[in-house]
Amino acid sequence: MTKDTPEQEQGSFTAKDYHDPPPAKFFDSKELTKWSFYRALIAEFIATLLFLYITVLTVIGYKSQIANGNDACGGVGVLGIAWAFGGMIFVLVYCTAGISGGHINPAVTFGLFLARKVSLPRAIMYMVAQCLGAICGVGLVKSFHKTYYNTYGGGANELADGYNKGTGLGAEIIGTFVLVYTVFSATDPKRNARDSYVPVLAPLPIGFAVFMVHLATIPITGTGINPARSFGAAVIYNKEKAWDDQWIFWVGPFIGAAIAAFYHQFILRAGAAKALGSFRSATHI
Amino acid sequence: MTKDTPEQEQGSFTAKDYHDPPPAKFFDSKELTKWSFYRALIAEFIATLLFLYITVLTVIGYKSQIANGNDACGGVGVLGIAWAFGGMIFVLVYCTAGISGGHINPAVTFGLFLARKVSLPRAIMYMVAQCLGAICGVGLVKSFHKTYYNTYGGGANELADGYNKGTGLGAEIIGTFVLVYTVFSATDPKRNARDSYVPVLAPLPIGFAVFMVHLATIPITGTGINPARSFGAAVIYNKEKAWDDQWIFWVGPFIGAAIAAFYHQFILRAGAAKALGSFRSATHI
Amino acid sequence: MTKDTPEQEQGSFTAKDYHDPPPAKFFDSKELTKWSFYRALIAEFIATLLFLYITVLTVIGYKSQIANGNDACGGVGVLGIAWAFGGMIFVLVYCTAGISGGHINPAVTFGLFLARKVSLPRAIMYMVAQCLGAICGVGLVKSFHKTYYNTYGGGANELADGYNKGTGLGAEIIGTFVLVYTVFSATDPKRNARDSYVPVLAPLPIGFAVFMVHLATIPITGTGINPARSFGAAVIYNKEKAWDDQWIFWVGPFIGAAIAAFYHQFILRAGAAKALGSFRSATHI
Amino acid sequence: MTKDTPEQEQGSFTAKDYHDPPPAKFFDSKELTKWSFYRALIAEFIATLLFLYITVLTVIGYKSQIANGNDACGGVGVLGIAWAFGGMIFVLVYCTAGISGGHINPAVTFGLFLARKVSLPRAIMYMVAQCLGAICGVGLVKSFHKTYYNTYGGGANELADGYNKGTGLGAEIIGTFVLVYTVFSATDPKRNARDSYVPVLAPLPIGFAVFMVHLATIPITGTGINPARSFGAAVIYNKEKAWDDQWIFWVGPFIGAAIAAFYHQFILRAGAAKALGSFRSATHI
Repeated sequence: MTKDTPEQEQGSFTAKDYHDPPPAKFFDSKELTKWSFYRALIAEFIATLLFLYITVLTVIGYKSQIANGNDACGGVGVLGIAWAFGGMIFVLVYCTAGISGGHINPAVTFGLFLARKVSLPRAIMYMVAQCLGAICGVGLVKSFHKTYYNTYGGGANELADGYNKGTGLGAEIIGTFVLVYTVFSATDPKRNARDSYVPVLAPLPIGFAVFMVHLATIPITGTGINPARSFGAAVIYNKEKAWDDQWIFWVGPFIGAAIAAFYHQFILRAGAAKALGSFRSATHI
Repeated sequence: MTKDTPEQEQGSFTAKDYHDPPPAKFFDSKELTKWSFYRALIAEFIATLLFLYITVLTVIGYKSQIANGNDACGGVGVLGIAWAFGGMIFVLVYCTAGISGGHINPAVTFGLFLARKVSLPRAIMYMVAQCLGAICGVGLVKSFHKTYYNTYGGGANELADGYNKGTGLGAEIIGTFVLVYTVFSATDPKRNARDSYVPVLAPLPIGFAVFMVHLATIPITGTGINPARSFGAAVIYNKEKAWDDQWIFWVGPFIGAAIAAFYHQFILRAGAAKALGSFRSATHI
Repeated sequence: MTKDTPEQEQGSFTAKDYHDPPPAKFFDSKELTKWSFYRALIAEFIATLLFLYITVLTVIGYKSQIANGNDACGGVGVLGIAWAFGGMIFVLVYCTAGISGGHINPAVTFGLFLARKVSLPRAIMYMVAQCLGAICGVGLVKSFHKTYYNTYGGGANELADGYNKGTGLGAEIIGTFVLVYTVFSATDPKRNARDSYVPVLAPLPIGFAVFMVHLATIPITGTGINPARSFGAAVIYNKEKAWDDQWIFWVGPFIGAAIAAFYHQFILRAGAAKALGSFRSATHI
Repeated sequence: MTKDTPEQEQGSFTAKDYHDPPPAKFFDSKELTKWSFYRALIAEFIATLLFLYITVLTVIGYKSQIANGNDACGGVGVLGIAWAFGGMIFVLVYCTAGISGGHINPAVTFGLFLARKVSLPRAIMYMVAQCLGAICGVGLVKSFHKTYYNTYGGGANELADGYNKGTGLGAEIIGTFVLVYTVFSATDPKRNARDSYVPVLAPLPIGFAVFMVHLATIPITGTGINPARSFGAAVIYNKEKAWDDQWIFWVGPFIGAAIAAFYHQFILRAGAAKALGSFRSATHI
């Protein structure tokens, strides 16, 4: 609802300079020789560890509290769990954005790889670091909550009773689309140059997107939209149902991220390029 | 409570330059030939689709959860539903502001049209795109929640028992006034030039305005303040009561948006113009 | 926890220029001849009206909902009520800061008057506009909720059972101190010039301060910290208890605001002035 | 998820100038002669007092409300308590950052001391001011809630039944790590120079980090991560159990802060230094 002056709506971006960075090389051997590459892997590992630790601890702590019957209504509820996921993404994206780009999620890494923002080796290594971090984070929760952990579902993503696999897959696809679309909007170099609120707020709407998707889909799948989160919980929980549904939490997020990358690069940004060609001479600031 | 130095309170805006953009033409045929116009329609369609999908899914998921009786207190509650509506508006305004202006609501489009910020064809096409998006978003929820969807009210706006139509209409008028007044405050070019927090935070207070109005009026009308939202839910739900009350959710928001446009353009901004005339020579920065 | 480099902690503010605006005149007759003065009164009136309308509607709607017994746990609860008060202050300060300074609260106006930020006629007229706005806002709620309004306490501030008047007064004093201290911190011209986050975020911590105080003191007094809010509800509710306790909600907030003004002007800022004298020659940027 | 262009990920920071401030002297006698030093102590004392007052009042008020049985579901719950802690840190860091650095927590002060951001006398005096402020804040709550205060646990941190001391210590270590890691990320001068959202948002993610940790660990320890908070409550509550567990709430936070200081200074920033040496000639902006 902001910034709808005619010039801006029509995609004229001559008012301020910006330049798209060149696409990342598919394979960049020099990258692997730099300390900053390994530092980024460490940052992704630690961030995903902390993300799973805080969120799964919230889930298990809440379930054990209501099961013990004391103060049945005072627990954090689904609303508190949704806040834990969204709020941690806000905090961790804020902290790691300058170090690793702040992905903390293989689906985000996949979307940015498709858009040529990261190279293939970086994408693969990020995903490995994220999955290892998730396993360690959930492992910490299990070591803290030995008896409760398995009783209360281990924070694992499973399709709820009464929903078929198509619904679960659809929920994961659209939910991840919402997240990765927000990530692309927040990191678009054209918008960063033009709209003052884009770079400043960036981590906040990304965290809110995660919060919103959890409010909507916790009753259906427990909300994955992050394959590392689903994989880490499945490894530590290690029950049949969690493994049977695991594919949904990889295929869904990767499809959603791919659609978001396509939407941003070919509809929203390609449009901008076309518009630039068609009315360059008419701009008037 | 900020920026109340005497100069600023008295509307002296010589310290920083700003210029009001010229009013949008009533009908601008060139606009229709540009890709950026159609791109904006696509962005409004997708954003309204995602808005209805996430919010109505939250409503239905919550109602099915408490009806199943497991953990009656743990659901997201009215507070969580209000967050879903407000939070999604925050995220989607952030994402689409640079593409379409981020309306996502025919009442907002109507208010900005009255203030000559958008042309008539743009206003009409935005409303069509918003309504189609809303229908598709609610349709997705129905396809996910087949049995629950109709049982739990389909996310449709209806006047609650015990309230007469005048109360419902009044609630929609004032609620939409709060939203559209915030939109005008956030996009005022004079304030953007002068107060640093205005352009940076813009999407956040707009989302909070939606959140606040939902807290207050969910018990009365379920809170519309967005005709596309009410229309999309009515089309998919398609029960008599939802259609009987439908006019409230078009007339109310349009009146509220008109009052907000009048208040901003003729009281707040016209006052600035008068003040400028009356004490221009006395400014002292 | 930010910006604690030695220079900054020690109050050296030579790095960036800033200048305190001159204190407002005690009585400024020219002010009364300007349209911007009356526009500010209108903005304070409308903002306080909307503030009371949304918040008291949330209170009454919630209480009627739980009394009707349907979904006892799904209402917005004290947490939702606290959000309504804090969130509306965030939105309304954002919208009116550039027009009237965004007080919306006689205690804030009183604090800023003591600190010589507003003149006496402006302070008095603001308070009148705020009280009239509050009466109209609560009046609207009563007209919407005729039967419920009186049954559920009318949103009036009263001392809860089991607390004595001293406790109520203390709660109002400290709560208003938190709010007005935040207002002074957000509008300090020295900090605005030096710390980038101060002017940008300003309305958000002010809203959060209101939210926090409501979480803490709703069980004691229902939380006033705003004499216009308490007065407007008392006028419309008009029961003996609300009038008997009314003095607490004027005396408490005014004392709290005075202490905050004293703390900011004589401890925090006077200290800066002294420090400036004592080590001016030693600054090193 | 922001700013992941290749240059930025690889730690090239030639695009904008920044300079690390020189490390604080271990002992700086001149500091003790300045008014700004004592002003900072007053600000830390007042901020910690307000922090404990609001948060413990929320805890006691909530527990007394549900015990009285009226409206068992409407209280603020664990979610509201977590908001009180996180939201107050947001507000108070915002208000005091420019005066004292906004620590409000001996663990934060300890972490910043280890990283040579504050001198030893300043660190010690801050901790004393924080502990005195915490005692006064909780004392105020006890004077307001005489009968309820002891009945409802006094806001003291104790290990919950069913958790061993190792789990409690681990929860405090990791929780404080999350907080102090966020503080270091928000105050990193390199990132402040480069990423526009870092200095502007700073107090918000710090507050959210506190909010998140409370959601996760309230069921285990009540969440300390702030020795002044735990000490102040123990002094006023003064029961054996609170004193027996007290060491956990000093040792845990100090270890967590030390790990965060090490992680930031030796992994994240030292890495930057190495990278700078290894590819300085290859930078290309």
